[in-house]
Amino acid sequence: MADVLVIGCGLIGASVGMALRQAGRDVALSDEAPATTGTAVRRGAGRPWDGEESAALVLVAVPPHLTASALIEVQRLAVGGTYTHVASVQSQVQREIEALSPDASVVLGGHPLAGRERSGPLAATADLFVGRPWAICGGADTAPSAYADVRALVRDVGADPVELTAEAHDAAVAVLSHLPQLVSSALAAALIPESGRGAIDPGLQLAGPGVVDTTRLAASDPELWVQILELNARELAPVSRAVGARLTAAAEALEALSGSADPKAHAQATAALRDLLRLGNAGRALVPVKRGAREDAFAPVRVTVSDEPGRLAALLTDAGAAGVNVEDVHVEHVPGRPTGIIELLVGRRDVGRLGSALEARGWLVMEPDEIDLETHLST
Amino acid sequence: MADVLVIGCGLIGASVGMALRQAGRDVALSDEAPATTGTAVRRGAGRPWDGEESAALVLVAVPPHLTASALIEVQRLAVGGTYTHVASVQSQVQREIEALSPDASVVLGGHPLAGRERSGPLAATADLFVGRPWAICGGADTAPSAYADVRALVRDVGADPVELTAEAHDAAVAVLSHLPQLVSSALAAALIPESGRGAIDPGLQLAGPGVVDTTRLAASDPELWVQILELNARELAPVSRAVGARLTAAAEALEALSGSADPKAHAQATAALRDLLRLGNAGRALVPVKRGAREDAFAPVRVTVSDEPGRLAALLTDAGAAGVNVEDVHVEHVPGRPTGIIELLVGRRDVGRLGSALEARGWLVMEPDEIDLETHLST
Repeated sequence: MADVLVIGCGLIGASVGMALRQAGRDVALSDEAPATTGTAVRRGAGRPWDGEESAALVLVAVPPHLTASALIEVQRLAVGGTYTHVASVQSQVQREIEALSPDASVVLGGHPLAGRERSGPLAATADLFVGRPWAICGGADTAPSAYADVRALVRDVGADPVELTAEAHDAAVAVLSHLPQLVSSALAAALIPESGRGAIDPGLQLAGPGVVDTTRLAASDPELWVQILELNARELAPVSRAVGARLTAAAEALEALSGSADPKAHAQATAALRDLLRLGNAGRALVPVKRGAREDAFAPVRVTVSDEPGRLAALLTDAGAAGVNVEDVHVEHVPGRPTGIIELLVGRRDVGRLGSALEARGWLVMEPDEIDLETHLST
Repeated sequence: MADVLVIGCGLIGASVGMALRQAGRDVALSDEAPATTGTAVRRGAGRPWDGEESAALVLVAVPPHLTASALIEVQRLAVGGTYTHVASVQSQVQREIEALSPDASVVLGGHPLAGRERSGPLAATADLFVGRPWAICGGADTAPSAYADVRALVRDVGADPVELTAEAHDAAVAVLSHLPQLVSSALAAALIPESGRGAIDPGLQLAGPGVVDTTRLAASDPELWVQILELNARELAPVSRAVGARLTAAAEALEALSGSADPKAHAQATAALRDLLRLGNAGRALVPVKRGAREDAFAPVRVTVSDEPGRLAALLTDAGAAGVNVEDVHVEHVPGRPTGIIELLVGRRDVGRLGSALEARGWLVMEPDEIDLETHLST
């Protein structure tokens, strides 16, 4: 009997296998494509499943729209104790399982919030889930043993379990993952020159970090994302409509500002824009900041560097020689040029000492009292 | 006679003064608030202007909606040779100057694409413009001497001059700067719980880098941005309307997918979503990638690190000991935790050597053939 049987040896399934193997767990692998199973075995994700051996936990890691049927199919073989899956949208899968499973109480859905643009077992890594959230979405009748088995799996691959209902999960990923994807795609689409308006060719050199960050997700794979968006269509539709309506209302306010000299219309239009910007402030404040609770303990030292190879390593070597622990490094790129500003994040009490030490070694250090951690280059 | 007279000693004016002083230029300073002038003088941005002394170049650095009147006012004193400004929107300022200036041919508008969330002379830095684009927007009658003076200013503060018409500038910043701001605000606003829908509280832990990056601009100052959006209302309105319409159309497609079992409606809806995602791919491809033309020369080595202080510095020290130049460092944060993946960007031919050297020193290196430069964590 295997500890875990993994059905589906793509990026997620093979990565789970590799992580579990590193944790000393015995893993059996199965994929409908024997070549894929073979690749996963060679990557160290586990041993091939013989089609009959039982397992304490069965993990189904197939595309989300195939998850329920694949899980029920293996459950009918009665080879597992607990069954789980990794569908990026949970409610629909849960409904199908509750309707069709021989025993829905031993099925507990999960969703690792980790992934890569590349897919397949060749892209798998044992550390794919380290420190990432892994949603666990129980139903009304989920057995305590199922929770214990899935929590152990999540812990063994290094992820952080987040337990919530399937509905809360889908609502959360709708706004936190699927909506940013849609919005980023729609924004990037506006950069394409069309009929004169929106043509930016001569001005592309004016692109700054703002547009780079907000359009990053727009590079995602359309085929994968059509599936994901479709599965969460019910949750995603109203929030997509709400953002669309806000931008349409902003356009109307802007049209009023450019077309009317009426002071009252003008005041209403600027108030509408101000309200949107303030709502944006409030919404952004809800997003967990990337450095978490430790943020207060650290502060940045910023150094301007010129275009010479090895400057970054030299800077960090000098920082190390000053006896200061550097917690993080951020390089502010200048589009089209390697010149930029390097930000070293260090303990607050080390800021002055590091700045002085670097200046003594000839670095151009920006003054510490000028710097906010949340400094934002408004280009 | 001063080299440069700076009118308005806020963040931009004082930073220009500090940069010019470092370049050895003589700078006179004036602000309607004497305390602000005094602060800028103490920051090393120049000496106080006596209200009469002439200057080869006058730079007007006041809020954009006050720029034209302030520039014309100082031009009527006939104290300057060339006059320039730093308005973030150019066309309207240019029109006002052409209508009212005693001599528009010696006025040449500019716009440094640099800034910070903080304002005022205390936030000023001499290196604010280093490597950043600085738009220069001439009119039909602009004198060659004005171009020479403004180009010299831009060069002396370390910026990259980008010459284009005021109209092309405003169209470019509409889509590259003002539209990302609006879209980011509208997206962040959707994170605020309202009437059940869009409530994400239990799921906030599921936030990943996508939503963090796409909502970063939403933290910007509403008062400043209302002014900017208003001045560029004419260019911004149609692109804001276009993005709003695309998101509304996406919502309609999603509603069709969640509400209808008709295969034809289903196929049309998925095609609409696929088209939007593909347009997003095409638009994103137009955004200058941050490493510019040098991107092909470098590739990443990714290392998983645990939560221990000093790991980053230790890693870079080991990379240095391996004799490999590290061009850039990127730390993938995990929300709420300092654990993560460190990406070292090095010359392509050094990837294998650095990976082996780091593994030999006990680091958990991800396999190089698994890595794309554009790797995207799809959370």
